[in-house]
Parts: sequence; structure tokens; C-alpha cells
Amino acid sequence: MTQMEAEHYKFGPYKIDPSEVFFSTKFSYALVNLRPLVPGNFIHVLVCPRRGVKRFVDLTADETSDLWCVAQKIGGQLESYHNASSLTFAIQDGPQAGQTVPHVHIHIMPRKSGDFERNDEIYDALDKKEKELKQSLDLDKERKDRTPDEMSQEAAEYRKLFM
Amino acid sequence: MTQMEAEHYKFGPYKIDPSEVFFSTKFSYALVNLRPLVPGNFIHVLVCPRRGVKRFVDLTADETSDLWCVAQKIGGQLESYHNASSLTFAIQDGPQAGQTVPHVHIHIMPRKSGDFERNDEIYDALDKKEKELKQSLDLDKERKDRTPDEMSQEAAEYRKLFM
Repeated sequence: MTQMEAEHYKFGPYKIDPSEVFFSTKFSYALVNLRPLVPGNFIHVLVCPRRGVKRFVDLTADETSDLWCVAQKIGGQLESYHNASSLTFAIQDGPQAGQTVPHVHIHIMPRKSGDFERNDEIYDALDKKEKELKQSLDLDKERKDRTPDEMSQEAAEYRKLFM
Repeated sequence: MTQMEAEHYKFGPYKIDPSEVFFSTKFSYALVNLRPLVPGNFIHVLVCPRRGVKRFVDLTADETSDLWCVAQKIGGQLESYHNASSLTFAIQDGPQAGQTVPHVHIHIMPRKSGDFERNDEIYDALDKKEKELKQSLDLDKERKDRTPDEMSQEAAEYRKLFM
């Protein structure tokens, strides 16, 4: 068991299985997403501060810097690993921006030409299952859960990129 | 004329009038947006590195840290100034993610309950004018230009927040 695997991670109220974490620093960690977007092979990972703060403004300068240096590194590696050509980075910072888990997190999504017919459909896809909700919740919202095995496997692949 | 007003700013190929810049540091600057979103009073500003690099991965660690510490500060001030309750932060990093100006920039949008009926409509609004384009360009795309006066006035208001 590596050190990373022995550690514990919290994401808001949720305990994150270390097998789903593929990169971490003193201040931040990166995890695969329980509910990736449709289409099914669309990649979508999260980067969080280790400290469970709700709003971006509550991070210290060290946490903010580390979080985004980690996001930069992960974005670069995943774009290349998935033969993508662009990246979407987003923070939904607070409930009115679509945040559902009260723990700051960056969404990172490698993008390719034609991954969504119109670029905006990435957001429609995020919303597909809750058209009926008045305030739909984009990137954080309920989608089909993957199995722990699927998630561990993806994280294991990504972990190798940072060795 | 303050020091900020005497400086020159470039945003990709465009020269930015200093009256549209409301905050700057050694590495970064913040500007009001030429084409804010509909509905009309929706707030939408940009934060850029001073160095005109295209992709987020090309920023140095100092530039990355400064850019996001500036975004954090500006987000906090604008959320409070506009009586908002959340923030959307996004980077469209590369053409396939909707980037049209080849210069890294963070979109910051203070959000309120009900600002869009469904949270995702923020993206539909961004896209409204180019449904016909196969690859629509979200946050960067053509919208109605504001006058230089309108922009200077908004920037002047914001500049006071950081004095």
C-alpha cells in the first residue's frame, strides 16, 4: 500500500476511497468522478483542497496557488493522455452557481473537436436528467453512479501519469 | 492619470483601453467584458495574465498562483458588491473548449438565485446568437458590444472596490 492509498480524503460530507484518488499534495488532491458525463467516455475529474472549505474565497493563498498548480498539471497530463486538444476548467462556487457538495472543487474536462456537437451541449448533457428541476445543478448533479471497480481502475491509470 | 491608466494591456491581438481595466498586479489584470451576457444586468468580468499566452498549461507557477489569487479577490468583492450569493469561474482552455481569444482568461460571473431559471441557461444565453454554428463558443462568443463609455463607467466603479 502506497502512502497515498493509506491516506483518508473527505469531499464535503463524503469519505473518498483512496483508490479513487490519483494525485495529491500537501494542500490538494485529485479524484475521478463518481458520475461522469454522457457520452459515456467523456472524461471528467475533480481537484479539491484537502481542507473542506465550502467557498473559493475561504482558501488561503497557499491553498489557492497549490489547487490551481495541481489543476494545471493534471489538465496537461489528461489532455495528452486522452488525445484531447482543449480543456474546460470550472468552479461552481456556491449553490446559485450549481454547487451541490459544500467543498470547493475544480471540474476538469478534456475536450475534443466534436465531443459535443455544439460546444454548449456539454452543459445540456450535464443537465439532461433534471430538466424538471427549477434550479438544475450542472456539473455536480446526479448522474448514473459508476462501480467502485470502474473508478479505481481509472484512478490507477491516471496515477501512473504522475509517477 | 493613475499608474494603472497609463499602462497598456493586450488581450490576445486586441489592445485593451486602460479605462476598462479595474485591477492589476505584476502578473495579472482584470477587465470588464465587451459583451456581457443577457439578461442585460448580468455581471461578467475577465481576469488574464499580462503575458499573452494561449493555454493555461503555459503559465508559470507564479503566473498561475497570481491569476487565481486575483480571481479569488475579485470574485469576493464583486459577489458582495452585486449582492450575489455564488460565483461561476471558468476557463475555456483551447478552441475545443470554446476559447476564441488566444490569451488565457478566467470568466467570473456573480450568481443569484433565479438569475437563470435553470442554472444551465447561463450557457444557453451565452449561445443564443449562434445556434446555427456547429461549434458554438460559449463564453467568448459574439454578443452585442457595449459602448466604451459604458465599459469605462463599470470599470471605474469596480476600481473603487480595490483602492
